[in-house]
Amino acid sequence: MTPPARGDHEARRRDVSEAVWRVLADRGFGGLTLRAVAAELGASTGLLTHYFPHKRALVAHALEVLDRQAAERRRPATEAAATSRGLPVLRAALLDVLPLDADGEAGNRIWVGSWDAALGDPELTAGHAERYRRARRRMTELCAQAQELGDLPADRPAADLAALAQSFALGLVVQALFAPGEFPPARQRALLDDFLAGLAAGER
Amino acid sequence: MTPPARGDHEARRRDVSEAVWRVLADRGFGGLTLRAVAAELGASTGLLTHYFPHKRALVAHALEVLDRQAAERRRPATEAAATSRGLPVLRAALLDVLPLDADGEAGNRIWVGSWDAALGDPELTAGHAERYRRARRRMTELCAQAQELGDLPADRPAADLAALAQSFALGLVVQALFAPGEFPPARQRALLDDFLAGLAAGER
Repeated sequence: MTPPARGDHEARRRDVSEAVWRVLADRGFGGLTLRAVAAELGASTGLLTHYFPHKRALVAHALEVLDRQAAERRRPATEAAATSRGLPVLRAALLDVLPLDADGEAGNRIWVGSWDAALGDPELTAGHAERYRRARRRMTELCAQAQELGDLPADRPAADLAALAQSFALGLVVQALFAPGEFPPARQRALLDDFLAGLAAGER
Repeated sequence: MTPPARGDHEARRRDVSEAVWRVLADRGFGGLTLRAVAAELGASTGLLTHYFPHKRALVAHALEVLDRQAAERRRPATEAAATSRGLPVLRAALLDVLPLDADGEAGNRIWVGSWDAALGDPELTAGHAERYRRARRRMTELCAQAQELGDLPADRPAADLAALAQSFALGLVVQALFAPGEFPPARQRALLDDFLAGLAAGER
């Protein structure tokens, strides 16, 4: 890697992002150091500090990369939203979260790994809290649509239904990461449908 | 801290365990180093290597401490199991998992933080996978009891009901850690009861 030069800067940042991603996929956030990323790039630690003056900047960048990847993965739900409302879109959004293929598994492994670093730093905690708040807000809208359409019971606040859905999806991600053999994609999908059937089962 | 001497050894290990716990609560697994634990103890890193020859041993010890704490926290569910079967015991077991007080929050913060280190190491992944497998097995028994008693629908395998319950609880833990203000204990309990009502709502 050469020092950042005009024009090259974007390409270099992309190289750096990819190196960050590979280090995270291999070693998790605990192994994300300037030295490890520099080694992955074949560059010196000093050179890397042109991009990231300290580890915190590196972690913040890694979380931006994760956000971008998550936005790309959200496309199927966005497409479903164009033609549909409520429960089918909620289902598509939850499917997008699950580790149903190699990319989903790598992304989730890194995402789950980010929780340790995030919980150890108030600013990162606030950033993660806001990410999850946004996701719940989006799911709350979908749950409210499903209630209007009569697909989800109207006796519970849509925000509670959204919190149930997000809890279920996050926890299934964790279990599937630790025991992929017990949670193959087909079982993850079946459990999601079981969960949604319970959510829809109605008034208590 | 003095070098390990006969008789003192157990007391020293307890001191070390407490120092490990404090480092984890402050900085997470990413901040768990021999140097940080030594500083917390007011000891040298060299001295600490009498107990932990390398970081891996330190992480393994931290997970043992977590297991012990989790077993202590499981007591209410164990007491419920002495007088009851099925759904009420499952509910007590899930309540034990949630961060409903300061201890539950500290323990869960460390537990969630352990996932990054665990996913980065095949042996630790296997250990965590086995922990969750045991928990699911226990919940599967409780779900089967609840099915016998007619409290949960019999048309789904008890193992699937248990996987749903564990997914929900783990995900709620994560959300409550990042947004304790939005998930105070009363709301966590209410969401758990909503979830269990959906689980019980029966045949599809």
